[in-house]
Amino acid sequence: MARSLGELAAQFGCELIGDPAIAVSRVATLVSAGVGDLSFFANTAYRNQLRETRAAAVVLRPQDAKDCSVSALLAADPYHVYALIAAELHPAASINAGIHSSAVIHPTASVSACAEVSANVTVEENAIVADAVYIGPGVVVGARCSVGEHSRVLANATLVQDVTIGDRCVIHPGAVIGSDGFGNARTEEGWVKVPQLGGVRIGNDVEVGANTTIDRGALDDTILEDGVRLDNQIQIGHNVKVGMHTAMAACAAVSGSTTIGRRCMFGGQVGIAGHVTICDDVSIAGATMISKDIDEPGYYMGSFPGEKGSSWKRKVARFRRLDDLINRVAVLEKKVEENSE
Amino acid sequence: MARSLGELAAQFGCELIGDPAIAVSRVATLVSAGVGDLSFFANTAYRNQLRETRAAAVVLRPQDAKDCSVSALLAADPYHVYALIAAELHPAASINAGIHSSAVIHPTASVSACAEVSANVTVEENAIVADAVYIGPGVVVGARCSVGEHSRVLANATLVQDVTIGDRCVIHPGAVIGSDGFGNARTEEGWVKVPQLGGVRIGNDVEVGANTTIDRGALDDTILEDGVRLDNQIQIGHNVKVGMHTAMAACAAVSGSTTIGRRCMFGGQVGIAGHVTICDDVSIAGATMISKDIDEPGYYMGSFPGEKGSSWKRKVARFRRLDDLINRVAVLEKKVEENSE
Amino acid sequence: MARSLGELAAQFGCELIGDPAIAVSRVATLVSAGVGDLSFFANTAYRNQLRETRAAAVVLRPQDAKDCSVSALLAADPYHVYALIAAELHPAASINAGIHSSAVIHPTASVSACAEVSANVTVEENAIVADAVYIGPGVVVGARCSVGEHSRVLANATLVQDVTIGDRCVIHPGAVIGSDGFGNARTEEGWVKVPQLGGVRIGNDVEVGANTTIDRGALDDTILEDGVRLDNQIQIGHNVKVGMHTAMAACAAVSGSTTIGRRCMFGGQVGIAGHVTICDDVSIAGATMISKDIDEPGYYMGSFPGEKGSSWKRKVARFRRLDDLINRVAVLEKKVEENSE
Repeated sequence: MARSLGELAAQFGCELIGDPAIAVSRVATLVSAGVGDLSFFANTAYRNQLRETRAAAVVLRPQDAKDCSVSALLAADPYHVYALIAAELHPAASINAGIHSSAVIHPTASVSACAEVSANVTVEENAIVADAVYIGPGVVVGARCSVGEHSRVLANATLVQDVTIGDRCVIHPGAVIGSDGFGNARTEEGWVKVPQLGGVRIGNDVEVGANTTIDRGALDDTILEDGVRLDNQIQIGHNVKVGMHTAMAACAAVSGSTTIGRRCMFGGQVGIAGHVTICDDVSIAGATMISKDIDEPGYYMGSFPGEKGSSWKRKVARFRRLDDLINRVAVLEKKVEENSE
Repeated sequence: MARSLGELAAQFGCELIGDPAIAVSRVATLVSAGVGDLSFFANTAYRNQLRETRAAAVVLRPQDAKDCSVSALLAADPYHVYALIAAELHPAASINAGIHSSAVIHPTASVSACAEVSANVTVEENAIVADAVYIGPGVVVGARCSVGEHSRVLANATLVQDVTIGDRCVIHPGAVIGSDGFGNARTEEGWVKVPQLGGVRIGNDVEVGANTTIDRGALDDTILEDGVRLDNQIQIGHNVKVGMHTAMAACAAVSGSTTIGRRCMFGGQVGIAGHVTICDDVSIAGATMISKDIDEPGYYMGSFPGEKGSSWKRKVARFRRLDDLINRVAVLEKKVEENSE
Repeated sequence: MARSLGELAAQFGCELIGDPAIAVSRVATLVSAGVGDLSFFANTAYRNQLRETRAAAVVLRPQDAKDCSVSALLAADPYHVYALIAAELHPAASINAGIHSSAVIHPTASVSACAEVSANVTVEENAIVADAVYIGPGVVVGARCSVGEHSRVLANATLVQDVTIGDRCVIHPGAVIGSDGFGNARTEEGWVKVPQLGGVRIGNDVEVGANTTIDRGALDDTILEDGVRLDNQIQIGHNVKVGMHTAMAACAAVSGSTTIGRRCMFGGQVGIAGHVTICDDVSIAGATMISKDIDEPGYYMGSFPGEKGSSWKRKVARFRRLDDLINRVAVLEKKVEENSE
């Protein structure tokens, strides 16, 4: 859908440098953009690309306009404005309301006439699919699950049971929500399974990444508040609570009964122990392991950057002999004390 | 299903403090429990919740009864007894024997008339589904796979081929069992695939978590013995052997041809190298990487807890300059030696 | 399919020690092999198994023939030759061309008459399935995806949309290719989704492991070049480029916009930060985290091996007090300087 730069400037509150009649119909990178393409500039490492772009227009900060030889839409946060314009030019696929003939819907389930249910879907007893929902092929909507308006549950995802999903959510392919938590009582004869009886409650505007898993609560529910963003292959244990607008990068794992605050940001492969509380506004670097409560906002780390193997092995050997070094320093302290007497 | 405290005390061998006629019909947490609810107390951090609970009764250790103002079932291991009572009050959904009309069963497959096969299932050639098995929607039971009595294979799980599953197992949604191991021979022209020809043999009473993957053996089988418990998103490489009653928390990964003993416990994100042997009764802390054999039972660690980024960065810088510190200490030792002569 | 040792020696260019008329029909390990079985010896740790094997013949290096009492096929790289012979004796299952009646094919999709499309498959609009392709049960081939000749997409895998797969690839069960990248713009009101509009382009002879996820590009495509091998549960972020013949072991994760060179080898659980460039011929040890460019081929590490918990805790405590040790050494240096004056 083509839009003129003048229209976009007015709609998104940007100052326009250039001809308001120029039309753009899609977004592209600075390097690949051409006639009719809109691009953006936010990462200063790419300033040379800005200087040479052949885009029709670029969204950028006012102070960067001097390096731009094409039309520009000025914005304090160009990535944000770019995201909004990209969604305008490339709207999500619209719904083809109806239930595919190969889908299997339990008679007690309630599926809106305005929802799209794709091929090979299974909807189980007492499940609810609201208006304007998209259910992708191969999805299973288990017993007593509910999917809110305008949400999208994509191919081969599974809502196991007792999962409530709010409005405008996206559940990516292969995600599993509502699986049993890992509850086992140890006995002399082995493990006894502790029945997992809770559900999962997910707020509005949440995204759950591909092949991510979210366990149902043992008794009470596992909770994701509004606006949470989970990348792919994340694991959320039973009875975890994730606060509003918290985002986690791929492969992060949160153990059971842990509470995560609002607006937190976790890097990839972060691991959080169980029964821990993380306060609001905590950022954690990739590959960091957190084993205790964090009650002060800020940036946390615990991972070592890799380096040449020979150099790393030498460091690890030194680390393993720290005790020896400490003893040598203690001996020195004693000798120096004696010498100076 | 409601049960009286008197009945439960008799059935599970507990001493009862309170009225044996009181009935309970479900389990709940100390905080949320009310009339008709049974709770348990095992973690002393929650003693205040015990004092204030409005549960009908609580399972607890004898020494904790003094802090309980409602009825109590006394047990040496309250979590174990609680697990058994919870399973009594909340039995797993019963089987609706039969094959859904949308399921596709290969003519050479053998499916018990007492099994439930859900919608959109595929059962391939020479597969066997035993009595009282539940096969969830979207599941694929591949060629020559066999699922033992009372086992449950949940939605969208895949048994690829040559997978044998014992009795009373639970395979959670999205799990993949029997995929090819990662066998590749390096040549000057790139990788040559090494055919993966073995199967997977899983004992009785095993649980395999959501989106967990277990590869088939290269030649012999990959093996999980009785009572193994695997959480979500675990990776088990080809020809791994996991001993009885070993449990692994989410995102643990075991490389090919490694042997894990009995009654081991791995924390989340543990990684075990290939061709390694871990003896019985080894516990490994979360996020630990094991690269060599372990032949002594006990507790093993190798991960650093995260902390404030500024403090961590300083520590890493110190670590990187350990060589320098060691040299300074050596210089000091020489000087002190000279001074003291 | 049985083959004589004489035929195999001629076909694969090996010197044969033994009777060329002896036939082998399958491959097996040194320990389990018997009459009619071919085995191989490459890892010298198993020399005792070689001495005692009852295999019909063993593929091995010339210098190891002295420890082999059965027939031997001599090869400079026995694992490579073994892989080729195993593929000869155990060819992949052949295609049963045709579309299963339960598969749902969009009228605009193009499926070769020589392809096999299994039960409960969904093929969406404008998808292309080439000759001799195998599509396993429960697979979703999304809009505008294309699968090249002789490729195999196994059970319950999902090609989301705009995914191009070359010839002779294997996509293992549960893999998700083409899911949205993790693009979010931070605002005061929470996260705004950045539309993900690119595709995924996969070359020839690529393997993608079970439950691995590969995100579509934000604007341009995510790319895997020819011969790439990805193990299970790997995460590839948006706009990553992986060079020819690079192999990654299970649970490796590559963040967005990172470029990986050719012939790299990553161990399990490796993590690579975003916007990083790794040159050709880089090997990275398991559980290593890489946060910066690597521009020199070689071997890189960054992980600590686990050890007894008590010993590890003491080391971590020493590490945390490195500052104190450095201060003590500085004090000593000053005192020694004074003493020696």
